[in-house]
Amino acid sequence: MTIQSTNITPLSRVSIQDDFWMEYVNLVRDVVVPYQWEALNDRIPDAEPSSAVRNFKIAAGEEQGEFYGMVFQDSDVGKWLEAVGYLLSSRPDPALERIADELIDTLAKAQRSDGYLNTYFTLKEPEGRWTNLAECHELYCAGHLMEAAVAYYEGTGKRKLLDVMCKYADYIDTVFGPEPGKLKGYDGHQEVELALVKLYRATGNEKYLNLSRFFLDQRGAKPNFYEIQLAQRGGKVHYPNLDIARRLSYSQSHLPVREQQTAEGHAVRVVYMCAGMADIAKETGDRGMLEASRRLWRNIVDKRMYITGGIGSMEHGEAFTFDYDLPNDTAYAETCASIGLIFFAHRMLQLEPKSEYADVMERALYNTVLSGMSKDGRHFFYVNPLEVYPEAHGKNAIYNHVKPERQGWFGCACCPPNVARLLGSLGKYIYSAHGNTLYTHLYIGSRIEWGTAEGPVAVEQETRHPWSGDVRLRISADKPSVFELALRVPDWCDGYVVRINGEAWTKTESLDGDGYVKIARSWTEGDTVDLDLHMSARRMSGHPMIRQVAGKTAIQRGPFVYCLEEADNGPHLHEVALLKDGKLQTDFEPDLLGGLEVVTAEGVRMKRESGDDRLYEPDVSYRVEPAALRFIPYYAWANRGRGEMTVWVRSL
Amino acid sequence: MTIQSTNITPLSRVSIQDDFWMEYVNLVRDVVVPYQWEALNDRIPDAEPSSAVRNFKIAAGEEQGEFYGMVFQDSDVGKWLEAVGYLLSSRPDPALERIADELIDTLAKAQRSDGYLNTYFTLKEPEGRWTNLAECHELYCAGHLMEAAVAYYEGTGKRKLLDVMCKYADYIDTVFGPEPGKLKGYDGHQEVELALVKLYRATGNEKYLNLSRFFLDQRGAKPNFYEIQLAQRGGKVHYPNLDIARRLSYSQSHLPVREQQTAEGHAVRVVYMCAGMADIAKETGDRGMLEASRRLWRNIVDKRMYITGGIGSMEHGEAFTFDYDLPNDTAYAETCASIGLIFFAHRMLQLEPKSEYADVMERALYNTVLSGMSKDGRHFFYVNPLEVYPEAHGKNAIYNHVKPERQGWFGCACCPPNVARLLGSLGKYIYSAHGNTLYTHLYIGSRIEWGTAEGPVAVEQETRHPWSGDVRLRISADKPSVFELALRVPDWCDGYVVRINGEAWTKTESLDGDGYVKIARSWTEGDTVDLDLHMSARRMSGHPMIRQVAGKTAIQRGPFVYCLEEADNGPHLHEVALLKDGKLQTDFEPDLLGGLEVVTAEGVRMKRESGDDRLYEPDVSYRVEPAALRFIPYYAWANRGRGEMTVWVRSL
Repeated sequence: MTIQSTNITPLSRVSIQDDFWMEYVNLVRDVVVPYQWEALNDRIPDAEPSSAVRNFKIAAGEEQGEFYGMVFQDSDVGKWLEAVGYLLSSRPDPALERIADELIDTLAKAQRSDGYLNTYFTLKEPEGRWTNLAECHELYCAGHLMEAAVAYYEGTGKRKLLDVMCKYADYIDTVFGPEPGKLKGYDGHQEVELALVKLYRATGNEKYLNLSRFFLDQRGAKPNFYEIQLAQRGGKVHYPNLDIARRLSYSQSHLPVREQQTAEGHAVRVVYMCAGMADIAKETGDRGMLEASRRLWRNIVDKRMYITGGIGSMEHGEAFTFDYDLPNDTAYAETCASIGLIFFAHRMLQLEPKSEYADVMERALYNTVLSGMSKDGRHFFYVNPLEVYPEAHGKNAIYNHVKPERQGWFGCACCPPNVARLLGSLGKYIYSAHGNTLYTHLYIGSRIEWGTAEGPVAVEQETRHPWSGDVRLRISADKPSVFELALRVPDWCDGYVVRINGEAWTKTESLDGDGYVKIARSWTEGDTVDLDLHMSARRMSGHPMIRQVAGKTAIQRGPFVYCLEEADNGPHLHEVALLKDGKLQTDFEPDLLGGLEVVTAEGVRMKRESGDDRLYEPDVSYRVEPAALRFIPYYAWANRGRGEMTVWVRSL
Repeated sequence: MTIQSTNITPLSRVSIQDDFWMEYVNLVRDVVVPYQWEALNDRIPDAEPSSAVRNFKIAAGEEQGEFYGMVFQDSDVGKWLEAVGYLLSSRPDPALERIADELIDTLAKAQRSDGYLNTYFTLKEPEGRWTNLAECHELYCAGHLMEAAVAYYEGTGKRKLLDVMCKYADYIDTVFGPEPGKLKGYDGHQEVELALVKLYRATGNEKYLNLSRFFLDQRGAKPNFYEIQLAQRGGKVHYPNLDIARRLSYSQSHLPVREQQTAEGHAVRVVYMCAGMADIAKETGDRGMLEASRRLWRNIVDKRMYITGGIGSMEHGEAFTFDYDLPNDTAYAETCASIGLIFFAHRMLQLEPKSEYADVMERALYNTVLSGMSKDGRHFFYVNPLEVYPEAHGKNAIYNHVKPERQGWFGCACCPPNVARLLGSLGKYIYSAHGNTLYTHLYIGSRIEWGTAEGPVAVEQETRHPWSGDVRLRISADKPSVFELALRVPDWCDGYVVRINGEAWTKTESLDGDGYVKIARSWTEGDTVDLDLHMSARRMSGHPMIRQVAGKTAIQRGPFVYCLEEADNGPHLHEVALLKDGKLQTDFEPDLLGGLEVVTAEGVRMKRESGDDRLYEPDVSYRVEPAALRFIPYYAWANRGRGEMTVWVRSL
């Protein structure tokens, strides 16, 4: 194996102590996860029933009834249990653990004797197992339950669900594989690939790793498995109104993954696949898979990503479109897709510690993911547009998928539990270790315990990030330890100062090409490193090929992309323009939406001089009125009623 | 009756003698109409069969077989015959007339003994007559055949089809009406309303006028007829994938027409309805109907129309959206809708001769309608976008309805025959008479014969319009005649000079409030009026509420709206900007696409200074390169291969 990769930080070794993030982590613990449990049990008044738990109870023989819900309903239970596993990693909660244990007992009873565990096919189509991989999410659901099993095992030490899922994985391995007589298939929605790698890491059983690689390598192979199955089913499809079974690029099965040059089709599927590919590259040293992962990374990050870290430029197929096509108002930019992009970035970071992966992780996290959930933990955006004109919604159908306000709960409830499991495991994303180097990727107040050759050390991170670029790291060690600290210099930062124990530190070499300041020395108890990252509001431009932002500017400060809202700037945001050379002033407003750094910019509002009300008029002159444009971080938009919003502003 | 209205010019009294337009009129005669006849008879290789003629032959007992095509397939035959009627009005063509006569014989044989004439219901659903007015276009098809009957009668003097359609109309009058036992319905696609007025004018039978008014007044009445029929059909719909039967605003049946404040739903349906409303106002003096027509006119023209005279802002429902919502790239702007807008404008002009109606007629004609057909007469645009980025087509689904190149023939072939019947009857739109005043609405080389109190006169119009604003009118009269000439001063014109027999004419009163220069005198043989309309290229701005054109400018010269094409300006049109104070130079290029006046404008192309290829970059500076922007008339776009196009250009 020639790929040098970093270790993953176990969640139990990191604790978060951060003003900004504890609010979210507590929200997940106190509101989102309990609320979701109620939803999974059909106890939310006025919401469509989920039946996700009931389906398992019926399959377990604990209740009578029929399967209800989407074909992938089981995955909601998996995502919830995974989030619970993370919460229990960081803090005991006997009541929650008892609920989860009982649910796991039900899951175990619902498992068939051969290991199969899927309530849709068990209850509704027992003869249909594995007959429609393109559409029916069997392995996808299995993957989410595997992720839950590993998280719950790591959080509690309890093996019951892990054993259930290993038994299921063992059974899957008898069904799929390169050997004669096995199916040469793979799931229409990638997920089991990355989940099997987790199962391999938790158990050491290489069968799971090989099965994951088999699924990845089989995807897009000729003859196409989905076309074969479609013919075997006589053309029968599960979703008659969609074209999933036929449109191969929708599920990235149009080409072998190693040959894919661009990110095509359903955005969430792409990034889940890429996360699995990076995992396989890391665990097997497969350089071809590494190159394929890098290629898709480059395409997404260099050509197909919104400035907010959103991906998916259209509603049709929730999909990528083409290079540099990033419409602001009809964007899809699904919350789940940005979470998947974080998964992918985090895997790439484990493969090669380059700050650009953390930059994207941070961009998606602080903008699209945070935008996805309201501060009450009960309202969510599925779609995260960069421009909204509320009157258009419900009136021009190109915006039918966009909601100008966060919604209560979705029929297809994928995003809320995904937010919960990401924020519940946030500690995993802050640090990583690579040999004798401890990398800090995200600036979040926290403490990590780490073992060096000389013994255990702990590093405490204190910061007012994301509002300030000042970070202090404090070392705790029983005895002096030689190791390297690698501190990310973010892409938003144009200068930084390091002090060690209060003394200016002159770096002996220029900034590492991978984007980290590296400080190697012998550290002793109480040593401090102060990193002052220069954080200022900056004007951002889009690539010249992004026609939708030509002549426009966005404001970014630190990790936050900013936006104009009608609540601050009045209606008709298309009339305002930002002055190229005007000042950008920042002020922290503690009472605004829980405390926000607001950016005020010199701008103008263009008013037509003529009093005529004609639709088209020749030789019009405009009165240019000075306007102080007030920007707030994008994630905080849509918290003050319906109103216009825009990230990109005309620039003069 | 208190509404003073103008007379319609019979087509036979006007002959067109015009370089610009004869090319199109000849194209209709020599190519479009013969080609469509082949298409209607399923003789176009590689095109989907129409079966429109065959359906009638089967219904007539001349052939065996089954109905094939859309539920409104009959209307294609009606539109074709109508165009033939117009062509025969202006010039005899015995071969064409023989073909049409034979077709009319078939239609007569296909008519049922009770007068009913519709091949879909006769052949396919004989029990279904009048059971699904919302979706099944029965009266719509009847209307097109009535229009054909009147045009053919006026063009040839032959009554056979007129008699057939009177018999059908008489039968329809026994089915629908206010009397007890009759259906209180109306068609889902307006058309029969205006057609019945034509039938009334041709025959003098007031029954048809009353039936038309009944249909208009019944629309949107409560309880809703479509809801009643839907319930009677047990919820059965003809188009399961559409929502026509339920979405009442789609067919303007959400409110009584007299209460409708805004143009809602399917754009073609709206303007066909409005044409019928204006007809009823004119013929019956119904002031309420006049006010309702004016109200919808104002809403369309002041708030919902593209600068090209296109209407319909979205593909979904081919429909209007809301005030000032005029997206350039996802526009629908169907060719047929602009033709319908011309019908509506022409009717309003007959009600009250105000130049604004002719302005809109001209705008739609010279831009969207001309854009709709290629100069070979065999390729058509159904959708007329104002901005095209060809790479997006087939890749971003919001553009699925937009084609960057004109197409050969459509499955739903509504636009080509509509273009044919409009251009075939162009002579009707140029002049009208109002008492003793002869109005010239359009500047098209032509001759009109007219009767005054003193005897017959003829007026010949000579002009290089649309390329020049110079117009000469020459009077022919056996003896001196006192009458008034009213010459439209178009909205694109900011000054004009009149000379009578070469002498400067000082108008004795300021320009008439209705937008016409009026010259009343005794005219004698050989008198000439020279009208020099100032025609220059001008910068147009959109209303401040049209967010899609904020900060942008369009160029218009005379009736032509201009556009930038990649063929002239290279790719990445979003990088260019027009300088506010730069010169606009015009040059006639005789070899360009049959001869075009090209506008060259001082502009710039913005180039990013940084060599970085990052998707988002801070503090970017741009190099501003001078660029001579070359604009061509919008109607001529997409004749030089696939390429970018935009009407609205960023303005600096």
